[in-house]
Amino acid sequence: MKIESVDFFYLSMPEVRDIGDGSQDLLLVRLAAGGYVGWGECEASPLTSIASLVCPMSHAACKPVRASVLGQRLDDIGDVARIGRLVRENSSDLLQADHTFSGIEIAMWDLLGRVRGAPVYELLGYRRAYPKLPYASQLFGETPHETHEKARAVRAQGYVAAKFGWGPFGRGTVEADAEQVTAAREGLGADAVLLVDAGTVWTEDVDAAGARLAVLRDCTVTWLEEPFVSGALAAYRQLASMSGAVRLAGGEGSHSPYMAEHMIDHAGVGYIQIDAGRVGGIGPARRVAGYARARGVTYVNHTFTSHLALSASLQPYAGFEDHRLCEYPVEPAPLAMELTREHLVPGEDGLIRLPDGPGLGVTPDLAASARYLVDVEIRVGGELLYTTPDLGDRS
Amino acid sequence: MKIESVDFFYLSMPEVRDIGDGSQDLLLVRLAAGGYVGWGECEASPLTSIASLVCPMSHAACKPVRASVLGQRLDDIGDVARIGRLVRENSSDLLQADHTFSGIEIAMWDLLGRVRGAPVYELLGYRRAYPKLPYASQLFGETPHETHEKARAVRAQGYVAAKFGWGPFGRGTVEADAEQVTAAREGLGADAVLLVDAGTVWTEDVDAAGARLAVLRDCTVTWLEEPFVSGALAAYRQLASMSGAVRLAGGEGSHSPYMAEHMIDHAGVGYIQIDAGRVGGIGPARRVAGYARARGVTYVNHTFTSHLALSASLQPYAGFEDHRLCEYPVEPAPLAMELTREHLVPGEDGLIRLPDGPGLGVTPDLAASARYLVDVEIRVGGELLYTTPDLGDRS
Repeated sequence: MKIESVDFFYLSMPEVRDIGDGSQDLLLVRLAAGGYVGWGECEASPLTSIASLVCPMSHAACKPVRASVLGQRLDDIGDVARIGRLVRENSSDLLQADHTFSGIEIAMWDLLGRVRGAPVYELLGYRRAYPKLPYASQLFGETPHETHEKARAVRAQGYVAAKFGWGPFGRGTVEADAEQVTAAREGLGADAVLLVDAGTVWTEDVDAAGARLAVLRDCTVTWLEEPFVSGALAAYRQLASMSGAVRLAGGEGSHSPYMAEHMIDHAGVGYIQIDAGRVGGIGPARRVAGYARARGVTYVNHTFTSHLALSASLQPYAGFEDHRLCEYPVEPAPLAMELTREHLVPGEDGLIRLPDGPGLGVTPDLAASARYLVDVEIRVGGELLYTTPDLGDRS
Repeated sequence: MKIESVDFFYLSMPEVRDIGDGSQDLLLVRLAAGGYVGWGECEASPLTSIASLVCPMSHAACKPVRASVLGQRLDDIGDVARIGRLVRENSSDLLQADHTFSGIEIAMWDLLGRVRGAPVYELLGYRRAYPKLPYASQLFGETPHETHEKARAVRAQGYVAAKFGWGPFGRGTVEADAEQVTAAREGLGADAVLLVDAGTVWTEDVDAAGARLAVLRDCTVTWLEEPFVSGALAAYRQLASMSGAVRLAGGEGSHSPYMAEHMIDHAGVGYIQIDAGRVGGIGPARRVAGYARARGVTYVNHTFTSHLALSASLQPYAGFEDHRLCEYPVEPAPLAMELTREHLVPGEDGLIRLPDGPGLGVTPDLAASARYLVDVEIRVGGELLYTTPDLGDRS
């Protein structure tokens, strides 16, 4: 098969608010080859990724992403890796390319799964997909009382693991943070898994982060996520040496397997969090999962958007029985829920299972998606390089 | 002063060829505050960076770059760093932002230098700018004979240091590479500094790179540049342990100071190569320079475009007398030469000196630039988000 087309669709809520909710817009990818269609999603700024798909060539190592995709052979998973290398070689000076290609790579796996009638995790060599324990990702409340209520509510919904992050956390006093974490623990109950996400609030200030360790230990927090920006490996490592039973988590900003491997090798993290829609796709994410497991680090997906992205992000470690936690967005915007016809909902045992259907096992609801479609037009030197393609004609 | 406007101009040669020449297009940045204008340049895909400047917000951590720049106070160099932190916080999920902000940051330094009537290196705390020894950056010839002639020619032009890279190097046999490197050394003369750039050709294959070490040592090559992709720190370190007097060089792909620091800490490089137009600007580049020097690693600029970019890339280590080599593009496209009214040409002693004029000490030739200006128009949801601004009205 040859890749005949790669189309990007920018979908957005009518109003995007200035809050830490990444499900307010998304970039849907449609790939066509040999009469088959695969779907993917980039975890990325839609307009910027569209520009990097179609931009004019700057030089041999700064080509538009589609130049390395269109017309390529796609017969087996070796081709996916080969095309990935081609993109990295031809677009190594195009920074956005990693985010842009991630969604295309996911669509390739989906397409190959549909051709073979097999779920992606089987193509990855896993004999089965183990169920995952979803943790409910939420923002801290504005007050400890609000956080307490949110924790109670999420527990009442059946979640036995929850993550609180962002909001006021890390921006006030150590005491204020202690009250927030204590409220989360009390609301959730003593037996639940509690995770805390600092959202890089301390940049690289080890002392500021270290001052919060005592309450995290007292509240038996499983991990402290992103105390620092992704690159601050030395700060991570220093904090890891002090954090005891509270393990560090990070890695969502990785836009290549190398960056994730640096965190595993040099940051002392106990959990590595990978978004398949950023790291280069499912193949690079699978590489990180294997690297992590071999070094005693637990792999976790990072997902904040649709169930298409969720399925893609769970495939890379589907076959790891003991890497059991998974991020599960509990308050997504309507767009993120309506994007797909199928959803990965917790079973009666509270666990998430990947669908057995071919490819990613979820398909876009094109009629619903069309309601969120944003028209984009890019002209360079008078030439129309991009206009929103027709979403309906290949469903 | 308040930042009143930030404008991007996409300039390009009429024809861009599929060769390793990064000077075929460029992205010029104009920043206005308090009646002053500063100029910068992003080493980046122009269209993609324009999109990231103006894209609609996706969520709190994925805002367009200009949202963190327009209206900000810009009174001293502390403001430059503060705005940089703001961009990283507000656009941490917008991958292209680092390349995009780099040119804006450079324009801030240029503007502050013009306000103070001082060159940027003085604002950085350097009492003087030491002259640098330019190495002529060139592609290997298609044959050893061609490489030999190119080496002779560059020596005849007065260069006593030269770098050869890309082209056929690393893509054929070890013997073929040996003939190329030997031809370069013979053409250049025994007393010249010879550098070799592998252009990441071996990805992360240490054996393939290791097989070339013998000829590099025999030809007294000072550094082997980018044997592997930027992230392959473990491969770098392994090769560094075998390379003896031939030191490794790399780092041009760094789009944050952290990435450069990881190479210094974990890759065993002897030279760290930083492009101020990618790493986040002059401030982050200065941070890397200090980090490198404290660890016995030599800082070198990476520059492949205009003399505006060259001036920006030399400022961060201008005050280091003993970090003496500098990359100097010898075969730039006409656009890259015509962009500026002033040029940094080698003196009679063959050395390059930064201009003493305020800011970067070079100014765009707007009439010449206008001939290369590319019209861009970006519409999202019917709204015109970007159209090429007027280049002439603020010269």
